Amino acid sequence: MSKAQEKRGKVPGTVQVAVVGHNDPPPEVIQWAEEVGQRLAQKGAAVVCGGLGGVMEAVARGAFEAGGLTVGILPGYEARAANPFVRVVIPSGLGHARNVLVVASGDVVIAFPGSYGTLSEVALALKLGKKVIGLNAWMGVEGVIQVRTPQEAVELAIATVQKP
Amino acid sequence: MSKAQEKRGKVPGTVQVAVVGHNDPPPEVIQWAEEVGQRLAQKGAAVVCGGLGGVMEAVARGAFEAGGLTVGILPGYEARAANPFVRVVIPSGLGHARNVLVVASGDVVIAFPGSYGTLSEVALALKLGKKVIGLNAWMGVEGVIQVRTPQEAVELAIATVQKP
Amino acid sequence: MSKAQEKRGKVPGTVQVAVVGHNDPPPEVIQWAEEVGQRLAQKGAAVVCGGLGGVMEAVARGAFEAGGLTVGILPGYEARAANPFVRVVIPSGLGHARNVLVVASGDVVIAFPGSYGTLSEVALALKLGKKVIGLNAWMGVEGVIQVRTPQEAVELAIATVQKP
Amino acid sequence: MSKAQEKRGKVPGTVQVAVVGHNDPPPEVIQWAEEVGQRLAQKGAAVVCGGLGGVMEAVARGAFEAGGLTVGILPGYEARAANPFVRVVIPSGLGHARNVLVVASGDVVIAFPGSYGTLSEVALALKLGKKVIGLNAWMGVEGVIQVRTPQEAVELAIATVQKP
Repeated sequence: MSKAQEKRGKVPGTVQVAVVGHNDPPPEVIQWAEEVGQRLAQKGAAVVCGGLGGVMEAVARGAFEAGGLTVGILPGYEARAANPFVRVVIPSGLGHARNVLVVASGDVVIAFPGSYGTLSEVALALKLGKKVIGLNAWMGVEGVIQVRTPQEAVELAIATVQKP
Repeated sequence: MSKAQEKRGKVPGTVQVAVVGHNDPPPEVIQWAEEVGQRLAQKGAAVVCGGLGGVMEAVARGAFEAGGLTVGILPGYEARAANPFVRVVIPSGLGHARNVLVVASGDVVIAFPGSYGTLSEVALALKLGKKVIGLNAWMGVEGVIQVRTPQEAVELAIATVQKP
Repeated sequence: MSKAQEKRGKVPGTVQVAVVGHNDPPPEVIQWAEEVGQRLAQKGAAVVCGGLGGVMEAVARGAFEAGGLTVGILPGYEARAANPFVRVVIPSGLGHARNVLVVASGDVVIAFPGSYGTLSEVALALKLGKKVIGLNAWMGVEGVIQVRTPQEAVELAIATVQKP
Repeated sequence: MSKAQEKRGKVPGTVQVAVVGHNDPPPEVIQWAEEVGQRLAQKGAAVVCGGLGGVMEAVARGAFEAGGLTVGILPGYEARAANPFVRVVIPSGLGHARNVLVVASGDVVIAFPGSYGTLSEVALALKLGKKVIGLNAWMGVEGVIQVRTPQEAVELAIATVQKP
C-alpha cells in the first residue's frame, strides 16, 4: 500500500455507493430509495446516482437531508437538469454512456426496480466486478445479491466495502 | 425528407447491423455467428461489432470472406487489437462505454448468447429503441425477439430495417 | 426558474471550478495550484480536476487541506489511482475523453501551463461556452482570460459564476 | 507480429485518415477538403470525420464520389444527421467526447482551419501520439506539420502511415 493509499484510507466519507433505479417508480420504491439515501448518509457514505428523477432524486433527497454527500452524473451538459439534492454535478454530455460512469463510481451498487437503463447499469456493474445488491429487484440476473429492506441493503453495502 | 436523406437512401450498403455476443462462446455459437456474418454481407448490410474475439471475430470473418463491410469499435486505443476481419477500426479508448456505440451504430441488433457485457448491450439497445433479435439467447429479457437460426435472424433484421 | 432550481441556488458550495494543467510542472506552478485550491476552498467552491498528479494533485491538496470539497475524474477504472486529496472519485474508464467531463463539470475553468492534454481541455471548455482563466498560460489561445496571480484567478472565477 | 496482425497487413484499404476542420469554412477551404477526400480515396485510404457539415461534408463528398470509404462519427444518436456522403455512420451519442474518437480512428490526422472544436481534435491527436498535418492551419500549435496544398497533405499522410 502506497503512502497515498494509506492517506486515502483515512479520509472520512470516502465510501461511494452507486444507486440505480427507475426514473418514475411506484411510491413504495420512492420510499425505499429515500430511506437508503438517509441510511447511507448516516453511515458516512457518499451517494452516486444519475442525477435525474425517480429513484435518483429520492435517494439523493434522503442522503442530502441527512447531511450526506451526493453526486449526480448527468447524460447532458446542463448542470441545472440535476435534481436539487445533488451536491456535486457531473454534466457528462455522454448520453447513455454515462451509465457506465455511475456504476464505475460506486465501490458497491444498490439496484432498485427499473427498466432497460437500470438493467444496463446492473450488467455493466457486474462486468466491472462490482457487488450488486438488488432491493426486491433483478432476481433474474445471475450474480445480483437479493435483499428485502433498505436497512439490509445499506448494511450489506457498507459491509461489502469495509476491508477486514 | 431532406435532399440529404434522399441521397443517403440511395447509397447501397447503408444498412448497418450490430452484432453482440460472448468473446469465448462454444463452437456452435461461433458457427452461427459466422453464418450470420456471411448472410448479412450477401444482403449488402455492414456488420458492426466490438472488434475483438469470439462472436465478434466470427461474425466479422463470415462477413469479410463474403465481401462485406465490417466495422469494429474497440475499447482501447490500439487499432491492432482488432481481429483481422475488421475493415473499419474505431479504437474508441472508452472502455466499456464503447458498448453503447456498438448498439447505437446498428439499425437493428442481433444478439448471441453472452455474459454481462452482452447483457449490457442488449439493455442499451432496447433503451435506445432498437429492435433486438436474440438468436437462441436472452429469452429472459422482455422485448427481445426470439429466433432459432442464423437465416431467420438475418431475414428478420433486414426486414426490420427496410421501410415499406 | 423552477422550484428545484431555486432550491439548488440555496445549496452552499455548489460553485464548481474545474482546474486543468500539467501533470509534471515546475515547482512554481505547483505552488500556484496549491494556492488556487486553498483560495477556492475558502470561498466555498468545489474543485474538479483530472484526479492524478502535478497540477491536479496540488490544487486538490490545497483545497483539501483548507477543508474544501475535491472531485477527481480519472481516465481509468481504478479509484486508487486518484491522488489522496480527491474526496469524490469518478473512475470514468473513458481515457482521454474524460477531459471533456472535467471541463464540463466546471461552472468556470482555471487553466495552468500544460501540454496537449491541457490544451484539449482549454479548447473543449471554450467550445462548451465556459469562461477560461489562464494563470500565466494559454495566451496564444483566443478567448482565454489572462491573470497573473492565484488570487486574481480565484477572484475572477468566483465573480464569473456569481449571478448579479 | 501475430498471425492476426500479418493478416490485417494484407487487407487493402486499411489506412484510415482522420480529417478535422470547421463546420462552416470559407469556399476555398471547402475546395481543399474536397480535393483531400478525392486524393485519399484514390490512394485507397478510408476517410474518418465527424460526419456533419463544412469540412466534414466536403472531404466525405470528395472521397465518396471517387469511390472511397467514408466514416462519420456523430455527436448524437440520430444516424440521419450524417451528411449524405458518409457510408459508415457511428452515432456515438457522446457529444463533444466524440472528438476523441475521430482522431483516435486516424492512423494520421489532416487538420484544416477551424475553431475550438478543431483545436481540441488537434490537441487530442497530438496527445495520442498521432502525426498531425496542418493544411494552412494550426501553425501556432507546436508539433503540427505544415503543408500548403491538398496534394502535399495527402502524400505526406500516406507516407507517414506506410511502414518501410
